[in-house]
Amino acid sequence: MRIGIVGGTGDIGEGMAMRLAPHHEVVIGSRESGKANEYRLRCINTLQDRGVTCYCEGATNQEVVNTTEVVILAIPFTHLVQTLKGLSGWEEQIVISPVNPMEKREFFAFTPPPEGGAALLVRRLLPPGVKVCAAFNTIAANRWRALSEDLTYAVPVCGDDLESKRTVMALVDGTSHLRAFDAGPLAVSPMVESLTPLLINIARYNRMRDVGIQFI
Amino acid sequence: MRIGIVGGTGDIGEGMAMRLAPHHEVVIGSRESGKANEYRLRCINTLQDRGVTCYCEGATNQEVVNTTEVVILAIPFTHLVQTLKGLSGWEEQIVISPVNPMEKREFFAFTPPPEGGAALLVRRLLPPGVKVCAAFNTIAANRWRALSEDLTYAVPVCGDDLESKRTVMALVDGTSHLRAFDAGPLAVSPMVESLTPLLINIARYNRMRDVGIQFI
Repeated sequence: MRIGIVGGTGDIGEGMAMRLAPHHEVVIGSRESGKANEYRLRCINTLQDRGVTCYCEGATNQEVVNTTEVVILAIPFTHLVQTLKGLSGWEEQIVISPVNPMEKREFFAFTPPPEGGAALLVRRLLPPGVKVCAAFNTIAANRWRALSEDLTYAVPVCGDDLESKRTVMALVDGTSHLRAFDAGPLAVSPMVESLTPLLINIARYNRMRDVGIQFI
Repeated sequence: MRIGIVGGTGDIGEGMAMRLAPHHEVVIGSRESGKANEYRLRCINTLQDRGVTCYCEGATNQEVVNTTEVVILAIPFTHLVQTLKGLSGWEEQIVISPVNPMEKREFFAFTPPPEGGAALLVRRLLPPGVKVCAAFNTIAANRWRALSEDLTYAVPVCGDDLESKRTVMALVDGTSHLRAFDAGPLAVSPMVESLTPLLINIARYNRMRDVGIQFI
């Protein structure tokens, strides 16, 4: 699968690229192609040091949209609207939102936009032909990057288009030891997004690190 | 510990009483004391058949409030306001809300009241001396009742009063194999409450039953 990562040089995007590039054609996107290519080399070298070959390109975020069929929005919620407004050429891509609207206060608060959540905001901002799914919401950046550790989490996946949701679930199931669960239509995504600030609070108040979930 | 269950003859309350009565003084509350006493006998007999002794009383919901220091509100969200408005005599009890505001639509939706969640609504309705905690939110009625199976879930606990939160966490940790996690202040409770409709959706769309969570 050819997968583009908008924000592929960010906190989440970097580890995500390294996890996906051994199995897929990964296009690391950034605002500047120079930075994207720097991270492309870093990804290739890191994996090579582990004896893993991969396919990885560097590109602008706009080139990601133009040349990939699956686009992951690996950007913080605060940059979401501005980033999407700066991108055009959307057609029928599958767009995966791992974005969680949250804010650090006395505790980590879930701060959804009027649409109800980040994925629903993405849905409103992109043309109707684009298939929006929420996935990968609860996996911490540190865990993506810790390549020597398996990812053994449950990953709820939401979306309104069944075929693209199946594609995303297969992508999840093929990534480390993640396990995809169909969480229903995109309207359920706010419940998935609010899991992340909850997990950060759990980590904080129980002196744990990078807490994830499993369903039993 | 002496624990009262308002709604102790309901879906969740029945199994909860049977799980707690071997280890605590449990007062099963109901609108009618006759029904409460019927469930008291049922609880005692069910446990006796398993060779387990227990302490269990039957009472009206009002008597639960009058005579116990820890009160669990085992009632559906739709009955919450009416039930609390019918009860008086609140002083400094610890009140545990396992209540989740949700509604069955095309999927299970999280439908919080203007306060933000059920526990926050309880907080508003009860006098300030009462210590409100959210706990036990995600455990399905069927699992409470399946006495031959261990409960091996994570249980997020929220509350603003640290001492009562510790008491509730100890109660959770002493129940089957449940494990309590401090999820922070009561303001975090909506994130915990929205987990339950999420888990019901996960169960439904993946043909699973009574899905619970673990943090890893």
